[in-house]
Amino acid sequence: MTDQRIYNFNAGPSALPLPVLEEIKDSLLNFKGSGMSIMEASHRSKWFDDVINDAVERVKRILNLDDRFSVVFMQGGASLQFAMIPMNFLSGDQAADYADTGTWSTKAIAEAEKQGKNIKVIASSKDKNYSYIPKEMAFTPGAVYGHVTSNNTIKGTQWHSFPDAGDIPLIADMSSDIFCRPFDMDKFGMIYAGAQKNMGPAGVCMAVIRDDMLARVPKDLPSMLSYTTFSAKNSMYNTPPCFSIYTVQLVLKWLEETVGGVEKMGALNLAKANALYDAIDAGEFYNGTAEKASRSIMNVTFRLGNEELEKRFVSQAMENGMGGLKGHRSVGGCRASIYNATSMDAVLALIDFMKTFEKENG
Amino acid sequence: MTDQRIYNFNAGPSALPLPVLEEIKDSLLNFKGSGMSIMEASHRSKWFDDVINDAVERVKRILNLDDRFSVVFMQGGASLQFAMIPMNFLSGDQAADYADTGTWSTKAIAEAEKQGKNIKVIASSKDKNYSYIPKEMAFTPGAVYGHVTSNNTIKGTQWHSFPDAGDIPLIADMSSDIFCRPFDMDKFGMIYAGAQKNMGPAGVCMAVIRDDMLARVPKDLPSMLSYTTFSAKNSMYNTPPCFSIYTVQLVLKWLEETVGGVEKMGALNLAKANALYDAIDAGEFYNGTAEKASRSIMNVTFRLGNEELEKRFVSQAMENGMGGLKGHRSVGGCRASIYNATSMDAVLALIDFMKTFEKENG
Repeated sequence: MTDQRIYNFNAGPSALPLPVLEEIKDSLLNFKGSGMSIMEASHRSKWFDDVINDAVERVKRILNLDDRFSVVFMQGGASLQFAMIPMNFLSGDQAADYADTGTWSTKAIAEAEKQGKNIKVIASSKDKNYSYIPKEMAFTPGAVYGHVTSNNTIKGTQWHSFPDAGDIPLIADMSSDIFCRPFDMDKFGMIYAGAQKNMGPAGVCMAVIRDDMLARVPKDLPSMLSYTTFSAKNSMYNTPPCFSIYTVQLVLKWLEETVGGVEKMGALNLAKANALYDAIDAGEFYNGTAEKASRSIMNVTFRLGNEELEKRFVSQAMENGMGGLKGHRSVGGCRASIYNATSMDAVLALIDFMKTFEKENG
Repeated sequence: MTDQRIYNFNAGPSALPLPVLEEIKDSLLNFKGSGMSIMEASHRSKWFDDVINDAVERVKRILNLDDRFSVVFMQGGASLQFAMIPMNFLSGDQAADYADTGTWSTKAIAEAEKQGKNIKVIASSKDKNYSYIPKEMAFTPGAVYGHVTSNNTIKGTQWHSFPDAGDIPLIADMSSDIFCRPFDMDKFGMIYAGAQKNMGPAGVCMAVIRDDMLARVPKDLPSMLSYTTFSAKNSMYNTPPCFSIYTVQLVLKWLEETVGGVEKMGALNLAKANALYDAIDAGEFYNGTAEKASRSIMNVTFRLGNEELEKRFVSQAMENGMGGLKGHRSVGGCRASIYNATSMDAVLALIDFMKTFEKENG
């Protein structure tokens, strides 16, 4: 129990910018003079229209999108996208390529295979427990898309440059690193991201889809599983997850207006990650689990000498106001997720704690 | 612009209980001493576990469910359920029956037909613009289920007793009247409801599913489209819409502890609806659009002499602090949605306004 806010290193749902939470709080009973909470306003009202339109415009500006791209908000998380992508883009025996770089890639592949789609895993880092990002990808000529997971939350690896697939559009699950740095949308036919790491609360999944990909969507899909339903209706074929989209809008506003844009965010994230990896690499007490060239600037995974020590580390960190440092239940160890909303102050406090903990337990 | 909260007659998203909003507001920066917002807490944390488990227990208690029933929280609204129900329950040429009582029933039917499923519309009120609930339903022997929409938000009609289908389990879309009154789950194999009317904010859809229905779910469905994925993992196969579920939990707590349970809620809702229909029936100025025996106690639809008058009614009501009275864009006219969170005070204020408006415009 604490009456202070902790430094939040959760992997997702995770830290939100404090000014965003404060704005939500201030308007919770009466949103912009509407006399109601944004949760109580119709999604067909001018209040919500302003919210969703502003969110879409900000995504377009931040990602520097041209008119070929649609920005949509869906539900069901990235996990539903794993099924929707092959359903929407692969007809008959059309082929697609996948890179397998960890848990979420593996799930994306499994959902495509479950549908009997013609997909091929053309790169994998499974041989070394997904501790690196593959360098070579031999794309299948004529493949409809190539799927990558830009950041691997559980394994702590990240694509630092995306593969060159020639004419084949890439599709990327960017759930855990969207808006963490600038990147070029030119290679992509689609990107998607569950909001609950870098963009907002759980309950909404954003996608950016290029028009040539939308043209592939079959007409006979269930309405809620067709990308064109969302692109044609500005994500409002049915009631969207209004409050989650509202929070996303505020996070994007914070990113543009308080942080100063995605370039500045990228520089700050790099500085945070470098500081933390330097602390890990400074001695033998902490050991990073990802290969150095593949290290994520979002999820910093590391081990201590033994599990008992790791347990003590996580619990003493919590006592010192730092939460969420336990590694994913499937891999163990420790993980500091340092998403956009986690400040350099939080990282510096963690580094201080790590030094003290090492002195006391080294 | 108002610094007062309005009387909110929105059809959905719609009014939430003020104590619920106040509790959300008070804990927005620090949920129960966790040092973070509930939006920033892991869905695998004890904080969120308590939230979702309490929500499930309350649903079981309020609906008086026995062990055969699972309570799950999904995303995608009732609209995704329209597709998932036939996908999960109808294999091969197995048959199901549907009643068509308005817009949302029609959509449910269309999504089943789109999948080429063997469904039959065995009752419809389309002949009179969906202004009534059909009395006779001849269920198909051996049908896997019979689907009804318990309350028709747009047309203002409601099933006051559910049809007797013998051994055939009913499935009901209860999006706009769940928890508005007690009812017996014995007839039902499944009920489902988007939260954004009587249960919480948009972004979560609750379903209650009986074990014999779950046993029908094919193994090869995409994970996120299979009911067993949700029932097996307490709705946490992937990150659930945490904040929406948290708000649902608070609304259910309010229903049980502040209102005093669903029986009391039902009596209050009936009193609210009767007062409003009495005001409509008192003269010729207002005309209810639904047949009296089929009138909804949730959505009260009515017309005035002409569209210009209706427009003035809606806008003068707004000036007097009453919002959301415009009928659905597909049917026009006026509609007062008086869900659980809309108080008798709000209804009485509306009746007062209606009398004044009639005097000035009659």
